[in-house]
Amino acid sequence: MNFAASSVQYRGIIPPMATPLRARDELDVPGLERLIEHMLAGGVHGLFVLGTTGEAPGLSYRLRRELIERTCRQVAGRVPVLVGVTDTSMVEALGLARVSQENGVNALVVAPPYYFPNSQPELTEYIQHLAAELPLPFFLYNMPSHTKTVFDLETVRRAMALPNVIGMKDSSANMVYYHQLVRLLPERRDWTLLMGPEELLAESVLLGGHGGVCGGANLCPQLYVELYEAAVARDLARVAELHARVMHISSTLYRVGRHGSAFIKGLKCALSESGICDDFMTEPFHRFREPERAQVRERLAELGLLREAVRA
Amino acid sequence: MNFAASSVQYRGIIPPMATPLRARDELDVPGLERLIEHMLAGGVHGLFVLGTTGEAPGLSYRLRRELIERTCRQVAGRVPVLVGVTDTSMVEALGLARVSQENGVNALVVAPPYYFPNSQPELTEYIQHLAAELPLPFFLYNMPSHTKTVFDLETVRRAMALPNVIGMKDSSANMVYYHQLVRLLPERRDWTLLMGPEELLAESVLLGGHGGVCGGANLCPQLYVELYEAAVARDLARVAELHARVMHISSTLYRVGRHGSAFIKGLKCALSESGICDDFMTEPFHRFREPERAQVRERLAELGLLREAVRA
Amino acid sequence: MNFAASSVQYRGIIPPMATPLRARDELDVPGLERLIEHMLAGGVHGLFVLGTTGEAPGLSYRLRRELIERTCRQVAGRVPVLVGVTDTSMVEALGLARVSQENGVNALVVAPPYYFPNSQPELTEYIQHLAAELPLPFFLYNMPSHTKTVFDLETVRRAMALPNVIGMKDSSANMVYYHQLVRLLPERRDWTLLMGPEELLAESVLLGGHGGVCGGANLCPQLYVELYEAAVARDLARVAELHARVMHISSTLYRVGRHGSAFIKGLKCALSESGICDDFMTEPFHRFREPERAQVRERLAELGLLREAVRA
Amino acid sequence: MNFAASSVQYRGIIPPMATPLRARDELDVPGLERLIEHMLAGGVHGLFVLGTTGEAPGLSYRLRRELIERTCRQVAGRVPVLVGVTDTSMVEALGLARVSQENGVNALVVAPPYYFPNSQPELTEYIQHLAAELPLPFFLYNMPSHTKTVFDLETVRRAMALPNVIGMKDSSANMVYYHQLVRLLPERRDWTLLMGPEELLAESVLLGGHGGVCGGANLCPQLYVELYEAAVARDLARVAELHARVMHISSTLYRVGRHGSAFIKGLKCALSESGICDDFMTEPFHRFREPERAQVRERLAELGLLREAVRA
Repeated sequence: MNFAASSVQYRGIIPPMATPLRARDELDVPGLERLIEHMLAGGVHGLFVLGTTGEAPGLSYRLRRELIERTCRQVAGRVPVLVGVTDTSMVEALGLARVSQENGVNALVVAPPYYFPNSQPELTEYIQHLAAELPLPFFLYNMPSHTKTVFDLETVRRAMALPNVIGMKDSSANMVYYHQLVRLLPERRDWTLLMGPEELLAESVLLGGHGGVCGGANLCPQLYVELYEAAVARDLARVAELHARVMHISSTLYRVGRHGSAFIKGLKCALSESGICDDFMTEPFHRFREPERAQVRERLAELGLLREAVRA
Repeated sequence: MNFAASSVQYRGIIPPMATPLRARDELDVPGLERLIEHMLAGGVHGLFVLGTTGEAPGLSYRLRRELIERTCRQVAGRVPVLVGVTDTSMVEALGLARVSQENGVNALVVAPPYYFPNSQPELTEYIQHLAAELPLPFFLYNMPSHTKTVFDLETVRRAMALPNVIGMKDSSANMVYYHQLVRLLPERRDWTLLMGPEELLAESVLLGGHGGVCGGANLCPQLYVELYEAAVARDLARVAELHARVMHISSTLYRVGRHGSAFIKGLKCALSESGICDDFMTEPFHRFREPERAQVRERLAELGLLREAVRA
Repeated sequence: MNFAASSVQYRGIIPPMATPLRARDELDVPGLERLIEHMLAGGVHGLFVLGTTGEAPGLSYRLRRELIERTCRQVAGRVPVLVGVTDTSMVEALGLARVSQENGVNALVVAPPYYFPNSQPELTEYIQHLAAELPLPFFLYNMPSHTKTVFDLETVRRAMALPNVIGMKDSSANMVYYHQLVRLLPERRDWTLLMGPEELLAESVLLGGHGGVCGGANLCPQLYVELYEAAVARDLARVAELHARVMHISSTLYRVGRHGSAFIKGLKCALSESGICDDFMTEPFHRFREPERAQVRERLAELGLLREAVRA
Repeated sequence: MNFAASSVQYRGIIPPMATPLRARDELDVPGLERLIEHMLAGGVHGLFVLGTTGEAPGLSYRLRRELIERTCRQVAGRVPVLVGVTDTSMVEALGLARVSQENGVNALVVAPPYYFPNSQPELTEYIQHLAAELPLPFFLYNMPSHTKTVFDLETVRRAMALPNVIGMKDSSANMVYYHQLVRLLPERRDWTLLMGPEELLAESVLLGGHGGVCGGANLCPQLYVELYEAAVARDLARVAELHARVMHISSTLYRVGRHGSAFIKGLKCALSESGICDDFMTEPFHRFREPERAQVRERLAELGLLREAVRA
């Protein structure tokens, strides 16, 4: 928790970029460019493409390659780019890793293969294989609600012994577990610990983490950057105010639909209604139709997030 | 989150008291008295008897009544006493509530009936019935890992409309949910929100809660009281230091055994090894045997918690 | 699977008796007598009181004792009576066991204590303690959806070494597990294996079990008795016909309500509408109100189960 | 349940073919040919490639295409070939479907996209899209332990309205649910209902299903074919004998390893030790090493399944 003592390379807000789509297997290229510029203008510290929010598993491999190329070209080194290569097939994961390397990606992100449930010894061996073969440093991605497999503390500890595993994104939403991860930090001074759910960003940074992979930062990057900075500065009054705003977004914009997909649908719809990018979605999801769109517009207006400038 | 604006009656550290037993259905009476004095000397703000840590469901009703009587007599009004009357049978719950009232208990604590899974409408109606019949104000107790039933936000909101439901203890360990509970606080200025897992005490108080029901406060009450006070005072450096100590206890003392019962067994064994009270347990659990006891002693020594004075 | 080679004491249909209630903590005594006579007239091979269908955990201990006494008096030895003494408190379980013995009950039924999750070693020790102390032979009751604890095969095997553990009621609805239980039968020729869910009675008897604890046998005992007998007789055409009828009841009568309680509510409402007994329920449940009652009546009529004679 | 009234195209034993691998991304081609001939010699009624047992999600798309081509060429129309095109990406699923069609595959098999949890309306729409776009008839594949999404009965009913959805493989191992699926059969006379877990083959065919997708039929196809035929012939004594043999395989060969992968590892190791094909596995799994291999050999010997002829 002594920030001075840490030598991590990645910190701050690294949004899990939504994937702007115009149609099935077709990127919304101008939307992608606007979205990237919107986030960079908001001060984000990096971009994470092909994560859960980016609907990565729903995209064709062709489109994933195109997205990596276009993102890297657009970002042009202004912030680090992280790419998710999580895959049920090691061969396909390695293929995307090669494309990432060729395009100048900075680091990769890998969750456990997500069809079969994995045991911890299998998972440890898997990470060791990846560490031996991936051409770039990588983060572990803990996402048990979607992968069915959690990284046990002992598995994390073993991964920390591998130099090119450089950190972890924890999306378990389990703060007891998270605090146990913080306890491991002294074992590896260059290990980055990032929080997944944006609702937990405040406390994760206050109590020892390095930043967050906040989905909402696609829409209002500055809010999350400011919350991160307030937490780093130990400005608790400001943290409380900004955290309340994050909870308000989470409790309204992400709860328009009835299903588990409400978060991504709400976020993409808001991006569309804000004029940033198209909100076509990968199957089995579909973009909100009316009256959900009307609800999103209304909530955006309440939140002061309907930016007329962008739409004009 | 504006503490000044709140008029809650209960705040701070209200330990879920372990139940000192000498044998099946036999209280360790001197141990009980020592344990109560030990916690009060540590500055706790109340006591919660017959909760999960107190192994309430494992105790006979006769012993529960004896425990209520003896605890109230020993505490003698120095701090508020809360009593858990959670039961699968409404009749038995009401019986314990009457005994509580007769002995001067301040408030009750009620989790959902825990054999059958309950729907939210059933749960809402249940709380309304309790509110009509319980002779004392009561807290909701959210403990889905043991009761299988969570209090949905809408159910909590409905309970907030009942004047003698006065707050909630959340042991879900789900901080996203907890932050949503905090968002409900403006609806009821006298509603107390308490955190269950002690690992989450720091952030819960920093971000809007009123205190914690920390099991570890049976053993080292002062630590949790100080952490609570540091959080209220917004002294983040002190919070970080004390929170790290809480995590150290949680990661060592509560992890000696292999099973889900490791927390209670470790805590009771530590109380026994510290000379506070006996650690006989209700079935199907049994107290640690060697070599687990040796491990607990060792960890207590590391933690500086083997108090020779108490043992002498 | 060689029936001749088995020497089990209990076979056939042993309904988990619904508990007729007139009000909170008040038995519907004439209803109880009618219900018992109705089942005995239908040819059932035993009665199991104070199970899940009997809402046992929701009843006061006083009422449980009364129910044991009245049931034994009414049955008067015509069929064996089994009593559930499952409890989170060993002391209370032993108390009910004593009452059972005093009233001539034939055997007890015990599920794991259901508040805390139990490990297998804890569960094994628990059963060994019960075997040493219970005054009557008993069945294990596997009900993981409600108790959170499953009996692992190895735990069952160890229980089979205890002479007064005489069988198992499996309500896991996991047929792979059930077939593994059947594989254990050669180890103990007097071990009775009973199926919980009535939807699985047909196959469980065809492939090696000894009968079923069918909730629906409260309402139409003869149907389940005939299905059991057809399965024992290997009359597959008749099995198919009766099994289809069981599935029809299950798919209509037990699915009137929206919640997990739909089975018990539907069954009790049907008993009430058939004139057998009152359908007051323990909290947090309540009997069906209109329009659910109308649906139940309609489905009973479709099923030919509205017996005017009984109502007159 | 009237077989005469049914006009299903697919019946009997359709093994989910293991994928013989020599190394990462390299088929064991002679092994594949031997495996196919071994199953056809055993009398199987079809082959299902690229299912869970085939480790489909772990294979590269290139290898999946090669496997489809080689399997179709080897089978050469002797039995129907079914191909799993389950994918998190619709584009990739359609690509494999095209390759399947070009190679003369008879039908496809589709489980829900398995990264995101899906709601039932999303799933229904997904199936409708597939029905509109897939070039071949297809089966639904219910596999909630791996996909997190179950097909609700109402979703199945809606799928039955789509002519090119022709049946369902249920691997939920939930027999109550299965019996409810059987109840839907009268709505569509050409709808095939297949059982996944081989431990449930006997009862599924006795009580109304059309066959099984038995993993063990890779190793001893004749056993499962004979069990299926005995069940169709209502020869219960023979069913009991063969079912006991299936349970013996399941309780020994599939339980050598400690992890969830024990079934596939045990099956592939047995295929290797029987001289049929290599047992290299996709990551994160690896083939059994000694001493697990020795255990598998021993159990194969006990089962009389170490066929010297094949090894010579």
